Amino acid sequence: MPETPLAIGVDIGGTTIKIGLVYRSNVIEQIPPIATQEFDGPDSLVEVVIDSIEELRSRHRGIAGVGVGVPGFVDFENGIVHNLTNVAGWENYRLKAVLSERIDLPIIVDNDANCMAFAEWKRGSGRGLNHLVAITLGTGVGGGVVANGSLLRGARFAAGEVGQMTIDWQGRPGTYNNSGALEEYIGNKEIAGLAQQAYLDAGIERALEDCTPSQLSKAAHNGDEVALKLWDLIGAKLGSAVMNCCWLLNPQAVIIGGGVAKAGDLLFGPLTAHLYSQLSGPFKEHLMVLPARFGNEAGMIGAAAQSLEAAGVAILP
Amino acid sequence: MPETPLAIGVDIGGTTIKIGLVYRSNVIEQIPPIATQEFDGPDSLVEVVIDSIEELRSRHRGIAGVGVGVPGFVDFENGIVHNLTNVAGWENYRLKAVLSERIDLPIIVDNDANCMAFAEWKRGSGRGLNHLVAITLGTGVGGGVVANGSLLRGARFAAGEVGQMTIDWQGRPGTYNNSGALEEYIGNKEIAGLAQQAYLDAGIERALEDCTPSQLSKAAHNGDEVALKLWDLIGAKLGSAVMNCCWLLNPQAVIIGGGVAKAGDLLFGPLTAHLYSQLSGPFKEHLMVLPARFGNEAGMIGAAAQSLEAAGVAILP
Repeated sequence: MPETPLAIGVDIGGTTIKIGLVYRSNVIEQIPPIATQEFDGPDSLVEVVIDSIEELRSRHRGIAGVGVGVPGFVDFENGIVHNLTNVAGWENYRLKAVLSERIDLPIIVDNDANCMAFAEWKRGSGRGLNHLVAITLGTGVGGGVVANGSLLRGARFAAGEVGQMTIDWQGRPGTYNNSGALEEYIGNKEIAGLAQQAYLDAGIERALEDCTPSQLSKAAHNGDEVALKLWDLIGAKLGSAVMNCCWLLNPQAVIIGGGVAKAGDLLFGPLTAHLYSQLSGPFKEHLMVLPARFGNEAGMIGAAAQSLEAAGVAILP
Repeated sequence: MPETPLAIGVDIGGTTIKIGLVYRSNVIEQIPPIATQEFDGPDSLVEVVIDSIEELRSRHRGIAGVGVGVPGFVDFENGIVHNLTNVAGWENYRLKAVLSERIDLPIIVDNDANCMAFAEWKRGSGRGLNHLVAITLGTGVGGGVVANGSLLRGARFAAGEVGQMTIDWQGRPGTYNNSGALEEYIGNKEIAGLAQQAYLDAGIERALEDCTPSQLSKAAHNGDEVALKLWDLIGAKLGSAVMNCCWLLNPQAVIIGGGVAKAGDLLFGPLTAHLYSQLSGPFKEHLMVLPARFGNEAGMIGAAAQSLEAAGVAILP
């Protein structure tokens, strides 16, 4: 069997564009991150992405595909980006067609959370599984689903939006008027706001920028009662949404990544307690709740791996 | 191509056992329903089921399989019934093995809601679709999921439990201590209790048995404000759970059946209004919300159809 080929992963985020050469589960060479907001639309951004891809190709042989992850809704089949969250000017942009005109490699374009889920499934914490849910916790909350051994895309390639699922039918409206959207409760900003209020209720004034998840982790590790209660609350809310995924999909594993997941046991402890106590036998007896293997390289690694699948290459872990 | 063969469908419910000979989407001969509670355990019940199957086989040729639907958790692969809701004495019962010793036909055993979903997918409102969610509303709330063109069973064959999904992370506990379980809000009994209270709040005393979904339908059709408000509330709560299924699975259709669905537009009107107003484009533009084709024959039809699949027979609509 030939060595697993190289692939290029491009992760277009709201803040930076990451472009790297991926071999299995490693980014072996990365172009310095590019600020997304430098560009006023997709055309100029794509030029820089193409230059970077050509740069990597000029230095390496055996590159079999290019995968691009974007933060928004994508028509995966046709490689059309419907729109992007926090990136202006992208509307029904035919990214795959534009790239394919210039680059003679198999190209895939997908939602970034799907790329993360694919990375964890093929090369991360979910290797060898057939049924899993991957969730990424950050400014927004995203997700991807593997069912019956394939990435579940749904009717319009939009499946896996865990962050838009409700935990309260009468709760605060999300981006799409969806009452009680999980993202409105455990997104980065929402956690900070909640923490600030909780400290205030305890008679402590604290600036919003001192209430980030990483600072709440430090505080909790030092025994701060307010922070500990907050992590339990986050675990309960996330646990409720994860529970819904479990009742509906009966997965083997739920994989949690993203910045907020760096809290480790502070999050996973309450999360698993709230989750397992609300599931029956067949849903919990074999259920694994796992931290994601990959951090901010997940998008690149998953996009690159997906392009190998599109190129017809066997994806080894 | 040979004519689609006959199959026998057995639907073991909490109240009655229905056994019928199924041809495509029709039950062409049915054994008179048998009261489930007559039996103190699976062994005596299974004897009667076998007698009925033999009776049908003695009168008809070309029967290719037997499918059994049960109200509980089933290991589909091995045909083991883990336990049944409202039917005593079933615990890890090897139903498929017991039946196979006596009947020389391919046999499948599955959860009744999965059978209903299979019936609607292959022969009902969901024909030709690859991604759908089927929900049945009655004393309990059950469901089944089709994704990527196959019934989604999950890690332990337990997927599709829509009735256990939460609509309120702090809500009333369900059967499995699951806070805010949908079933606790829109099950038959819960609707009646809610209606009785709503009438009382409006200064009207009404007996619980006069608050069934069918009576609430009649009242609403006559312009009864309390009943109309109740159907809107039921639509909002069901809509919230359906919304979660849509964000996670991005289905082409959601199919709603069971007794409560007989309310028709009284339910589907509020349901679709609450649902569509909380979904973004790719999730709603092509989404169909459809009434189920089959009523209380769904279990037999779906179980029979699944046994044909197990027998390797092409399933025509």
